[in-house]
Amino acid sequence: MIRGALTFMNNNDIYLDNNATTRLCDEAYEAMQPYQQEYFGNPNSLHNTGRIAHRALAQSMHELYQLFGAEDRDDIIITSCATEGNNSVLMSVYYQFIHTGKKKRILSTQVEHPSVAHTLEFLESLGAVVEFIPVNEEGLVTPEALRAMMSDDVALVSVMWANNETGLLFPIKELASVAHEHGALFHSDGVQAIGKTPVDLSDAGVDFFTFSAHKFHGPKGIGGLFIRGKTQFTPLFHGGAQMGGRRSGTVAIPLVVGMTVALRVAVANLEQNIIKMAHLRDKLERGLLQLADITIVGKDSPRTPNTSLISFKGVEGEACLWDLNERGIAASTGSACSSADLQANPTFRAMKISADLEHTGIRFSLCRYTTEEEIDRTIEAVHAIVARLREISIAY
Amino acid sequence: MIRGALTFMNNNDIYLDNNATTRLCDEAYEAMQPYQQEYFGNPNSLHNTGRIAHRALAQSMHELYQLFGAEDRDDIIITSCATEGNNSVLMSVYYQFIHTGKKKRILSTQVEHPSVAHTLEFLESLGAVVEFIPVNEEGLVTPEALRAMMSDDVALVSVMWANNETGLLFPIKELASVAHEHGALFHSDGVQAIGKTPVDLSDAGVDFFTFSAHKFHGPKGIGGLFIRGKTQFTPLFHGGAQMGGRRSGTVAIPLVVGMTVALRVAVANLEQNIIKMAHLRDKLERGLLQLADITIVGKDSPRTPNTSLISFKGVEGEACLWDLNERGIAASTGSACSSADLQANPTFRAMKISADLEHTGIRFSLCRYTTEEEIDRTIEAVHAIVARLREISIAY
Repeated sequence: MIRGALTFMNNNDIYLDNNATTRLCDEAYEAMQPYQQEYFGNPNSLHNTGRIAHRALAQSMHELYQLFGAEDRDDIIITSCATEGNNSVLMSVYYQFIHTGKKKRILSTQVEHPSVAHTLEFLESLGAVVEFIPVNEEGLVTPEALRAMMSDDVALVSVMWANNETGLLFPIKELASVAHEHGALFHSDGVQAIGKTPVDLSDAGVDFFTFSAHKFHGPKGIGGLFIRGKTQFTPLFHGGAQMGGRRSGTVAIPLVVGMTVALRVAVANLEQNIIKMAHLRDKLERGLLQLADITIVGKDSPRTPNTSLISFKGVEGEACLWDLNERGIAASTGSACSSADLQANPTFRAMKISADLEHTGIRFSLCRYTTEEEIDRTIEAVHAIVARLREISIAY
Repeated sequence: MIRGALTFMNNNDIYLDNNATTRLCDEAYEAMQPYQQEYFGNPNSLHNTGRIAHRALAQSMHELYQLFGAEDRDDIIITSCATEGNNSVLMSVYYQFIHTGKKKRILSTQVEHPSVAHTLEFLESLGAVVEFIPVNEEGLVTPEALRAMMSDDVALVSVMWANNETGLLFPIKELASVAHEHGALFHSDGVQAIGKTPVDLSDAGVDFFTFSAHKFHGPKGIGGLFIRGKTQFTPLFHGGAQMGGRRSGTVAIPLVVGMTVALRVAVANLEQNIIKMAHLRDKLERGLLQLADITIVGKDSPRTPNTSLISFKGVEGEACLWDLNERGIAASTGSACSSADLQANPTFRAMKISADLEHTGIRFSLCRYTTEEEIDRTIEAVHAIVARLREISIAY
């Protein structure tokens, strides 16, 4: 019973905001059902009801380890979302290294998600020294740029796997290697990577990796954090000692089961999904490049196959978004986490894109359910919208 | 389509472990469905899909405020569970008062849930002075006992509303008043109160109140934290500034909608549910009191109507639990959060119950779906089990 992307909301709506959140896939939805009302026990309880829940948890954890390439000695702890995962990593590093006076610095980038960026601000208020590795004009962080900043007092380097606004992919394995040369731990926020690029944690060399189910067609309210081997860790939640004491709180079995199935589906068809999404993303970009004065951010850099951040000169992003919405097309001006405050796009600023382009970005983020017809309709709509808005623009 | 308690798991199973977790009620399950796959947007997104999610969030929040008696100037923030809520309160008080050197002490009890108890241990390691208000022989904390310990350097008093193991109700309003006389904030972990006793936060005088949906037939993976008026608060999750910046992270709309409906149902029928549960709990206790040498903890004290913690002299709790499970009856030796480690019951220890009774407690926790026939079968089963186990007991 796979329902296509066209059937949600309204038969004519087109959802191209999959970096903000995705639709729960049918496979995950169906796998969750028995645990909603029938096998509802607490996995910590010793009776049958609890044991069935415990078995579902154990099987899900086993599969998560396999799908991520984690080893037995590694930890994957279940969290409520990537914001929790990112806060957990940064606070743990604070308690383990900064609070104890062992190290001083944390290095990151200026294009991280707010759940990293604002937690770093909080750590600064507690005495950590936070510094940003410069991104180059393509918006990328290079191993050389990181190496130039490293010293033995760096506790952690935190760089996202793929950027939520541009889709740009960072050289995680190389960056992790540079961090390790100087005895620092390495964290990657992998929220935007899963289902879009291969993720093999046995090879990547990361010490911490954050993920969130609702970004890969899993349920909302669940995510996880990978912690390599014997890495010391101070939990963010203290309590009933679930997850080996590293994340207390009753584990939500329906959500864990749904997340695991969603990951299984995303990984099983990854190669063909990447080809399909890249084909449609390229078609969208070719169609829009017929317009004058548009910039596609990171067009020739390594990117996730589903994301296109495009600036239309003279066209206010918010106005374009509004017109798209009127035509039943859901897109974004940047991350959903900053949509409400209408701030200029932080990725643009980090990339030193000129000020008049700052407010003109529109992000289209596709998914494996996006269809050719939806892309055709989107190209047509954007042509009409940009023409209209440029006609009334003072800046163009 | 209300299915009775007898239909879950297996037609003959009896679930009397509702203080560990509850079955998702049909009303909540059904209300969640449209938001699982159809209206799946991120409430922070500006397009229609996001706006529908945003409206569901706004309506749920409005109803939560009403159901708890919160005022507009109060905050209710959505969390992933009560463990998060309790950690958030205690860490915020640490950052606001202890870390800044304004105050030194936190007062609590020795019968709190591990998510309070172990977070307090963590705060001690950071320099807080944690002290416990003694419970009397009935297991209760009195306003007089608290008053004797108060001074102006107390930042917070944290006392649960109802105990998870005994059901004992603490005099929250009076305790909050004593805390406020000395300028301290007051927190109550209300997880075990909802659906079992009236909770009106406009009257209770608490500054913080924690709740968790899966304890009142709502979905797992969601809860909330009430924060009174202008109480200063340092968030546990920094990030995208959801919940007015006090709890970042994409809000899981299906779970929020389910929690709100579950609370609505629990509150709407509270009076008759209390009468029904108390009637069945009393019947269970009368039936078991026909056995010799049993102790019902807190029998004559104010208790939630669904909980009965019973010690059977000479009968190992774990053995009794096993036999009950063999007969399809789910109960507990104490809280699910400590079931796995087989520690002696902390409530028993705090109440100075003699050592030979420590390992003999069985907790039966009923719910509004529990039936008369289930209680009859439980009484019969316990009689047979206790007779058998005492026959082979060395201690009896």
